[in-house]
Amino acid sequence: MIGASTHPQPAPPTDLDAWTTSIRNGDRRALARALTEVENRGPRADGLLRALFSFTGKARRLGVTGAPGAGKSTLVSGLCTCLRQSGEQVAVVAVDPTSPFTGGSILGDRVRMQSHHNDPGVFIRSMATRGSLGGLAPATDDVMLVLEAAGYEQIVIETVGVGQAEVEVAKLASVVSLVLTPSMGDDVQTLKAGIMEIADVFVINKADLPGADRLQTELEGMLSLAETQSPVAIVRTVATEGKGIEEWLQALRTHSGRERNQTLYWEGRLFDMIRRRLMEKLMVSGLSQDEIQHSAAEIAARRANPYEVADEIVARLGN
Amino acid sequence: MIGASTHPQPAPPTDLDAWTTSIRNGDRRALARALTEVENRGPRADGLLRALFSFTGKARRLGVTGAPGAGKSTLVSGLCTCLRQSGEQVAVVAVDPTSPFTGGSILGDRVRMQSHHNDPGVFIRSMATRGSLGGLAPATDDVMLVLEAAGYEQIVIETVGVGQAEVEVAKLASVVSLVLTPSMGDDVQTLKAGIMEIADVFVINKADLPGADRLQTELEGMLSLAETQSPVAIVRTVATEGKGIEEWLQALRTHSGRERNQTLYWEGRLFDMIRRRLMEKLMVSGLSQDEIQHSAAEIAARRANPYEVADEIVARLGN
Repeated sequence: MIGASTHPQPAPPTDLDAWTTSIRNGDRRALARALTEVENRGPRADGLLRALFSFTGKARRLGVTGAPGAGKSTLVSGLCTCLRQSGEQVAVVAVDPTSPFTGGSILGDRVRMQSHHNDPGVFIRSMATRGSLGGLAPATDDVMLVLEAAGYEQIVIETVGVGQAEVEVAKLASVVSLVLTPSMGDDVQTLKAGIMEIADVFVINKADLPGADRLQTELEGMLSLAETQSPVAIVRTVATEGKGIEEWLQALRTHSGRERNQTLYWEGRLFDMIRRRLMEKLMVSGLSQDEIQHSAAEIAARRANPYEVADEIVARLGN
Repeated sequence: MIGASTHPQPAPPTDLDAWTTSIRNGDRRALARALTEVENRGPRADGLLRALFSFTGKARRLGVTGAPGAGKSTLVSGLCTCLRQSGEQVAVVAVDPTSPFTGGSILGDRVRMQSHHNDPGVFIRSMATRGSLGGLAPATDDVMLVLEAAGYEQIVIETVGVGQAEVEVAKLASVVSLVLTPSMGDDVQTLKAGIMEIADVFVINKADLPGADRLQTELEGMLSLAETQSPVAIVRTVATEGKGIEEWLQALRTHSGRERNQTLYWEGRLFDMIRRRLMEKLMVSGLSQDEIQHSAAEIAARRANPYEVADEIVARLGN
């Protein structure tokens, strides 16, 4: 065909077993396609996840959060370099909010990660969030499982601290780092209480700027007042010069507070998975988005009662 | 009985119609008991909500959020005074996170609201959030419906800007105010992108402090760059002296951006209500919290596959 691409997209694998095997054997294209299938909740996503699950359970999930401009991506790039030096396979999941306020800088950060793009031991995946109000992308948990089954031993999940993203990171990460800087008006008093309680490791980045000592003193003071479940570390870095990254990695390796929560994590996940399946079952049995929209408009106009509508819809599933 | 209280709790109403009528007639005890029933998702909550729903749809829901110490409770107390002067019935729902970092100051703020406690036209209800990671209390929507059915025309929902609370406030409020102060290091650059997009009205409280002009200039600059859906107002207040509250109320009254979203709101609510009912149906059909916990432990130990477990549980509901 005239004008057809000289790099045609390979046909997707037809056999689930072959696909799984390719992922396990380090085929990056098979992996990328699986991630897309899972992210889009495609028809073969559940089959893939079921097959890949038995190869998971060993990876560490390193959550990294902080305000825009704190230097998270540069830090994560340095962390990748350190982990590669000790021979570990590392995947990075970067969750990008679609906010018009921060979109630009995130794009810039992503560019910096290109320094690893020829290393087969580093895999970087960006995911967009749904909407701009924060929160992780819905399939983040499943994406991390696929990456782990593909052999990545350390999985970094990097999110801008917007809205509820950091709360969700705490649920799925083995250890959470909160990146602060002396330069950004990050007075400890203005830090959100929720964020303080989520962090296991505080990273004071740009620690060569004035105010780093003050920030650390304030952090230590606040932490001494708090009742934290697990020991919290504070490390100082200058990400752009690669300083302090080894110490950060050391803090990440020694922190073990969240590992015990695996049962609790799967309890929450099971409820989520069941809820989603129940809703899909209702949809399959005839409930449509159109019907919900129509009912919602009737309810908004007070021509229908939501408690009756919900009962009626749920009654359609047997028992 | 020796030592029995001299203020025995009255017996709960036995008849749903009588209960509903009492609430509609301004019986504050009947209202308080209904709120408790709804908050605890008691056995009669759905019946009450169904009966009360037809009396709702007119109230305005005023969301007020901001960092701890910004003066939200003093502002809200002033707002109540203004609304009472124009003869409106007003209810305040104060959502308290259980954070050890902020618990003290919230308690102090609540005390200030006592100035309205002899006025039958003001009803104040505190709700605790579940856990410390922010977010509204689960039954907040239903609590607001009950208050509206009881005749309150203006319903203020006040939340500390922690974690995901402000995102959830945006979903249920007619208009959202974000309270900032010049004194708290609230540099516009450090404001979370999600919060900026949620706010309809920016309140610069403690506007007598140095930095108020700079904060307003920065806000205006940032807003001129943003693509906002609805016009945004900036007002300046000194809550402790009652200054600027009338102007704030005026901004709240003239802002109409979110009123159109009622259908969208009910769409989301319907999905939530259906999800909860489906899960209750599974529980009634024999699924127990114990079984989920046991399965979660098996999954965490990789002795069970979560995708298989979820499919098996969902298959128990017919169709």
